[in-house]
Amino acid sequence: MIEFCLIGAGFIGPVHAANIAQHPRARLRYVVDLDRAAAERIAAKHGSTIATLDRALADPELNAVVICTPPRTHAMLIEAAAKAGKAVFCEKPIDLDMANVEACGGVLRRTAVPFFVGFNRRFDPTHKAMREKIARGEIGRPEMLVISSRDPEISPPDYVAAMPFGIFYDTMIHDFDMVRWLTGDEPVEVYARTAVMLDEKTNPHRDPDTAMAMLTLKGGALAHVNSSFRAVYGYDQRIEAFGEKGMLISCNQQPTSLESYSAEGVRRDPLHYFFVQRYAKAYADELDDFIAALEAKRAPSIGFEDGKRALAIAYAAMESAKSGKPVKL
Amino acid sequence: MIEFCLIGAGFIGPVHAANIAQHPRARLRYVVDLDRAAAERIAAKHGSTIATLDRALADPELNAVVICTPPRTHAMLIEAAAKAGKAVFCEKPIDLDMANVEACGGVLRRTAVPFFVGFNRRFDPTHKAMREKIARGEIGRPEMLVISSRDPEISPPDYVAAMPFGIFYDTMIHDFDMVRWLTGDEPVEVYARTAVMLDEKTNPHRDPDTAMAMLTLKGGALAHVNSSFRAVYGYDQRIEAFGEKGMLISCNQQPTSLESYSAEGVRRDPLHYFFVQRYAKAYADELDDFIAALEAKRAPSIGFEDGKRALAIAYAAMESAKSGKPVKL
Amino acid sequence: MIEFCLIGAGFIGPVHAANIAQHPRARLRYVVDLDRAAAERIAAKHGSTIATLDRALADPELNAVVICTPPRTHAMLIEAAAKAGKAVFCEKPIDLDMANVEACGGVLRRTAVPFFVGFNRRFDPTHKAMREKIARGEIGRPEMLVISSRDPEISPPDYVAAMPFGIFYDTMIHDFDMVRWLTGDEPVEVYARTAVMLDEKTNPHRDPDTAMAMLTLKGGALAHVNSSFRAVYGYDQRIEAFGEKGMLISCNQQPTSLESYSAEGVRRDPLHYFFVQRYAKAYADELDDFIAALEAKRAPSIGFEDGKRALAIAYAAMESAKSGKPVKL
Amino acid sequence: MIEFCLIGAGFIGPVHAANIAQHPRARLRYVVDLDRAAAERIAAKHGSTIATLDRALADPELNAVVICTPPRTHAMLIEAAAKAGKAVFCEKPIDLDMANVEACGGVLRRTAVPFFVGFNRRFDPTHKAMREKIARGEIGRPEMLVISSRDPEISPPDYVAAMPFGIFYDTMIHDFDMVRWLTGDEPVEVYARTAVMLDEKTNPHRDPDTAMAMLTLKGGALAHVNSSFRAVYGYDQRIEAFGEKGMLISCNQQPTSLESYSAEGVRRDPLHYFFVQRYAKAYADELDDFIAALEAKRAPSIGFEDGKRALAIAYAAMESAKSGKPVKL
Repeated sequence: MIEFCLIGAGFIGPVHAANIAQHPRARLRYVVDLDRAAAERIAAKHGSTIATLDRALADPELNAVVICTPPRTHAMLIEAAAKAGKAVFCEKPIDLDMANVEACGGVLRRTAVPFFVGFNRRFDPTHKAMREKIARGEIGRPEMLVISSRDPEISPPDYVAAMPFGIFYDTMIHDFDMVRWLTGDEPVEVYARTAVMLDEKTNPHRDPDTAMAMLTLKGGALAHVNSSFRAVYGYDQRIEAFGEKGMLISCNQQPTSLESYSAEGVRRDPLHYFFVQRYAKAYADELDDFIAALEAKRAPSIGFEDGKRALAIAYAAMESAKSGKPVKL
Repeated sequence: MIEFCLIGAGFIGPVHAANIAQHPRARLRYVVDLDRAAAERIAAKHGSTIATLDRALADPELNAVVICTPPRTHAMLIEAAAKAGKAVFCEKPIDLDMANVEACGGVLRRTAVPFFVGFNRRFDPTHKAMREKIARGEIGRPEMLVISSRDPEISPPDYVAAMPFGIFYDTMIHDFDMVRWLTGDEPVEVYARTAVMLDEKTNPHRDPDTAMAMLTLKGGALAHVNSSFRAVYGYDQRIEAFGEKGMLISCNQQPTSLESYSAEGVRRDPLHYFFVQRYAKAYADELDDFIAALEAKRAPSIGFEDGKRALAIAYAAMESAKSGKPVKL
Repeated sequence: MIEFCLIGAGFIGPVHAANIAQHPRARLRYVVDLDRAAAERIAAKHGSTIATLDRALADPELNAVVICTPPRTHAMLIEAAAKAGKAVFCEKPIDLDMANVEACGGVLRRTAVPFFVGFNRRFDPTHKAMREKIARGEIGRPEMLVISSRDPEISPPDYVAAMPFGIFYDTMIHDFDMVRWLTGDEPVEVYARTAVMLDEKTNPHRDPDTAMAMLTLKGGALAHVNSSFRAVYGYDQRIEAFGEKGMLISCNQQPTSLESYSAEGVRRDPLHYFFVQRYAKAYADELDDFIAALEAKRAPSIGFEDGKRALAIAYAAMESAKSGKPVKL
Repeated sequence: MIEFCLIGAGFIGPVHAANIAQHPRARLRYVVDLDRAAAERIAAKHGSTIATLDRALADPELNAVVICTPPRTHAMLIEAAAKAGKAVFCEKPIDLDMANVEACGGVLRRTAVPFFVGFNRRFDPTHKAMREKIARGEIGRPEMLVISSRDPEISPPDYVAAMPFGIFYDTMIHDFDMVRWLTGDEPVEVYARTAVMLDEKTNPHRDPDTAMAMLTLKGGALAHVNSSFRAVYGYDQRIEAFGEKGMLISCNQQPTSLESYSAEGVRRDPLHYFFVQRYAKAYADELDDFIAALEAKRAPSIGFEDGKRALAIAYAAMESAKSGKPVKL
């Protein structure tokens, strides 16, 4: 039985809490959050104890932490947990500052605790099937990737204020990871442009809410990613890989397969509303994989290097958007 | 150059007229219709002459007639044209009375003029591709056919009054032909039920406007056909063939391939409104095939026997609907 | 906490066992099966006790039984459980013999235990959305239903031998329930035809493996159902409801949303293999609904009358297939 | 009756010839081509006369020319026809050299002959429906465009040699026009990257056969275009417009609507092979529009300025691909 501590009870926290709770070989021992009410909601639901970070990390029965706090606290929490000898499952990004990331990497190397970055999309059954087909050579060498990755809403103003250019750090970072993971290749240059399309009320900080990026890969392939924080039709998640022998598309998904025919046309559901619905299985599967890695004493499937590289691309994309010039990686 | 006379300027008449006019090796020499205004509209458009039937048939330059008049006049007109030695392209059904059909068949055999029944669906590219795949054994022996064949509107009251149970004679007759043509097998029994679902105003004669039929084929396969005269979403034309190795579906078609995503869902066009739009290419291709047959002096692709058999099934379906019992063929 | 006894560890048994085990307010206390190895596999997985039926039913802590044994034993087991005062969740059909069903109904009325028939499809999210739209009048009065319901394989010979015409009793019975549930109307007549299409080896008893049925409803609507025990492309589950204002289709579903483009065309996954995959959520949700009914002391959502009526239609369909004539209900 | 001279009998020439020939108010009077055999094939088919350019242009009965020669000859031929007072329908691009284009524009202004650039995609029914919906505000202000525009094959080596970076000049130029036409806005900056992915034999000149471009529009919207000369699954033509109120996608199209279900999955046709098939209706409709403009003495729908602007974007994209830097327009 793997004993977990959830650090961060908001946003994606409840999703991980529920997945831990219903996993046959895991238990949610502690919930840590400054927001006591949020912590209590989760603790009550899953029979967990509310604790301070120190107390939780001091418990020798605790095996692992899941970090779901705001990004700026990730590196610090990773280090604390690593020094306490706990395995770490951390949401992306590792940090917003590359120097902090490097320091964090040093601690992880020294402590040698198992570390996993939550690139949940790698566990989506359709994206996985796509990668397997690419790896089997079904489309030959990938030549172009086209990724649409759009959210139905922007994060709350506080969250946005804490992480300017979150469209790269928080959203496209997943897509940059997809580019690396699907092609097995590394971007060497990125060019990005952003726009502010939402109104003052919805986006008071005027942080970019719309963006496109273009990546050149070492092997010569080209990749495009686009994002928005206002897809009114739901969470738009499409990945397309084009190669010499064909194309694969990981298409959007909808809650039901119902079709309605009327004089106005043929209608299907809007897309899943957001990541909790669209990637429900991926969240459960990534946690299961992390647990399996701890049990088998093997390295988790997505490590520090993956987290760092995707972050470096996000950082370069921000630099490019600011300068208006392509940025080398 | 094949010289044509169009008999019947209403309904499907203008479609055949336009196809003749734009065929590189055909000419619309005459238009015959009691409704002089309708005849004139077509004649003016294509530079044809308005004529009486007798005058047209007496012209030795005339090669062929296309009969698009109301069903009860078909057999008589076929016989007149055949006796005048003209090739005949006739819309289905050959007649509503099996005795008339037999008599007509006798005339056709004696005169040996080329004869073609307008089962236009046999020339639809998708239905054709389906038949070719079945013939190549792609689904193995066909075991079940499921056909949906629904019109967006009922015919005008006069037309309905002239042909009770038109849902079998005028609409499903196409589907019965599809069953024969796709499987290469013959129905041996039919069971049918009807309903009157439209209101008094739209369907004053209370003739069946909704129907289902079930056919058993000699080889053991089963077939289902359903029809309605009120598909508000357009002309619904689907054929499904199921066999030991798989299934083929000839899916519906729409005017454009546009998808609209909004908070209400994902929307595509309604289906093509009716047969003129949906089967535009099939109408042109069946005429081209008839012309090619005349030029090559080969028998037209769809002959008297095909017309008679589909009619016999329609007749049996009507008998079954009236009696509530299955009818042997 | 609702304490369950699973009766019947084969086939669908493990699905129900897993759903009970992971339900937050239920526990799988006992597993009953003559096949000790099968019972042990489930008991070991979920920490349950293997018991005889008598011992399990004698336990006052036990609240409910789930019956997943072969159909011929259902009525007897329902009666035993009901007499012991346990709530009963039973797989369809209630029995194969209408007299047994009536007797069983008498016991249920006298004992007044909660009773639920496992028409799992009523809990499928897409079928449910369809019913809600029909109920809201989105397509007006339903006029035609077209249901395709095909399995990827035939049951083992022993199972087939124990229940001739299983294509009606075991498979189409679900569809007959769908007809009632979706329209809120009752069939008054059924006509059915069957065929034996599988080879001697796969279907040694030459029991019908292919069937079509046509139903007339009290309100005049028509319904078609087709089934096969050999859909090589997976579990084919489509329901189509046509009405005066439009059409709804509950379309097939696939494991992933991946599209593969090559010179051979555009390919998507085969359908889900069978009911365990296709209706995974429906199985969990029907159990949750049963548990919620017990907790709320309300009648379960699908009762004895539903089970009996669907069975009566299946029986009539078999009679029709045997006699070749439509059968009144 | 508009009398036409076709200049250039190869490639797209036969398509325009056939459309002229079957237009009720047009006639293909002359065919001009140095390749006498090619000219003869078309002339014979449509009853036209083979002529030299001078002789054709000297004929006072001639109303218009259609220019389908290699791009480097366009400006010269436009000028010759304009000076002879003939209306001009010219394939894109106007020329490869911006100075020639400007000179050509001067001649067109002085002579004031009607001039039309063959951006055929503006006449595709689906793209048109998309533009109308955008214009009606259905998706609000367009914020992002994503265009995939891929050919099934590269042009012959001679053609490639005559027009380096044809992927921008010959292919993406259509997409750049789509960006302008759909949004009603103008790109102010373009960034592009190319790759050579085909083998030496297929692409001996190592001219770019794969490309991506990113455009920033005056109003702030972003656009992405990708192209390839080796889409093995057919002519890939997709346009996606995303805005504040939703998204529109002009989806790919296929020859038939047949679906094949087997154990390997669900398969549909490859896409239309190339532009002749995919845009058949668009080619006929653009010619009809040109003829209608001549008859109505109104300016053709797509004029010199449209041709010049799309070309300027293509030129800038090439500059960007060469320099690796974004280029202002």
